[in-house]
Amino acid sequence: MNLKTGIEARRAIRDKLWTGPTPALAPGYAQANLVILPAKYAFDFFLFCLRNPKPCPVLDVCEKGDFRPILIAPTGDVRTDIPLYRIYRNGILEEEVRDISEYVDEDMVSFLIGCSFTFEDALSKAGVPIRHIEENRNVPMYITNIECKPAGVFSGPTVVSMRPMPKHLVEKAIEATEKYPKVHGGPIHVGNPAEIGINDINKPDFGDAVTIYEDEVPVFWGCGVTPQAAIMRAKPEIVITHAPGHMFITDIKDEELKGL
Amino acid sequence: MNLKTGIEARRAIRDKLWTGPTPALAPGYAQANLVILPAKYAFDFFLFCLRNPKPCPVLDVCEKGDFRPILIAPTGDVRTDIPLYRIYRNGILEEEVRDISEYVDEDMVSFLIGCSFTFEDALSKAGVPIRHIEENRNVPMYITNIECKPAGVFSGPTVVSMRPMPKHLVEKAIEATEKYPKVHGGPIHVGNPAEIGINDINKPDFGDAVTIYEDEVPVFWGCGVTPQAAIMRAKPEIVITHAPGHMFITDIKDEELKGL
Repeated sequence: MNLKTGIEARRAIRDKLWTGPTPALAPGYAQANLVILPAKYAFDFFLFCLRNPKPCPVLDVCEKGDFRPILIAPTGDVRTDIPLYRIYRNGILEEEVRDISEYVDEDMVSFLIGCSFTFEDALSKAGVPIRHIEENRNVPMYITNIECKPAGVFSGPTVVSMRPMPKHLVEKAIEATEKYPKVHGGPIHVGNPAEIGINDINKPDFGDAVTIYEDEVPVFWGCGVTPQAAIMRAKPEIVITHAPGHMFITDIKDEELKGL
Repeated sequence: MNLKTGIEARRAIRDKLWTGPTPALAPGYAQANLVILPAKYAFDFFLFCLRNPKPCPVLDVCEKGDFRPILIAPTGDVRTDIPLYRIYRNGILEEEVRDISEYVDEDMVSFLIGCSFTFEDALSKAGVPIRHIEENRNVPMYITNIECKPAGVFSGPTVVSMRPMPKHLVEKAIEATEKYPKVHGGPIHVGNPAEIGINDINKPDFGDAVTIYEDEVPVFWGCGVTPQAAIMRAKPEIVITHAPGHMFITDIKDEELKGL
């Protein structure tokens, strides 16, 4: 299937012609994390994102009871345009489903949050290796001892993703990702996992471990799983998210997320 | 009075030692527009700001019933740290008061929005004249024909401020202000007032007219009065704002608002 644009990719997903992970679809178009929750939590969640922009960069928010992200994909619908969703009840992951029509209602608000696929493309272009892609694994993610700034009912640890690289590439990696504040921006930490509460770099809390060579240092970025950690702690009666790797594809080019 | 920092200036205002306009206080510290409204409007207003970042750049939002802006002035209190407030009822400006204790309650949310004082300092440093300061007037502001993106109950026209300058300085002015996306960023329009719905440049809708010399072009920026226009249209039962020129002084340096 030749899905070149955000619109083409969303249509194929909506028509169930594409049901797998999304990273390879619509190259150059930004993909986004999704969180749908009851309206009574929407202000607190919005504030949580504002206060923690590195792990939770807001790309768009839908009106209550409306599911079109008018800033990043005006023809999209977050209820149908993602191949696989997760249903959390009272903070517990209950199931993964392809159809959320029985779970959503008019009293819900949808948040679209920046995703590191965008900056990985920039890293590659800067000559920085992406180990988990080389090894065909999911990126390793870790719960840190860095608490997010709480907001209303939401609080929780910052979750980070890790990419190892030779020392001489670290500056390049910082420079390449700082240009993208809307998709996690520059690293949160470089070098010492213990300093941010990671005891065993070979045992990530989410995703897969990857090889770290002898001359390499681990570099840590804020991760879009952070809101899910906050949701697990706040325990709203229901929250719907994308399933890992199954993202919402926008009409925004990665390049447009540079700077602001 | 020698009020050098945000903390010193807020304390003097809180103690009623300073009751006038704030532009000259705590030079180098960013000042902010204030909007306090009932919590039931908070999500819609937050979304309105997200969708219209040029006129409504959010610097901070307080928890419901809390009045400390923890990102930009953790020791501040928006209920006491502004010299003069405005009370809107049902969209109509009712009065200006120094003490809002009888109007605020625990069910309200406060928004702090970027203010052009920050970028005026940057313009001055770039050698661009600030005519209304030269002429000791308030900046001229105009209601345009550019509709904001609506959000929930909020909608309205974009309000702009105008600064005239010789043609050869326009590029410099664009460059200087684009560095400050959190305080309105680059201009919305350059050159032709009629194109954005302004019929008479000598009759601003708010503030004062300023001299425009023959070789000069008018340059228009998004303006912090835009949220007030949206409030006047949405008509919430009560909204509290700062009075023009009487701003909330933060602990953030203007310089820190560069880039993100």
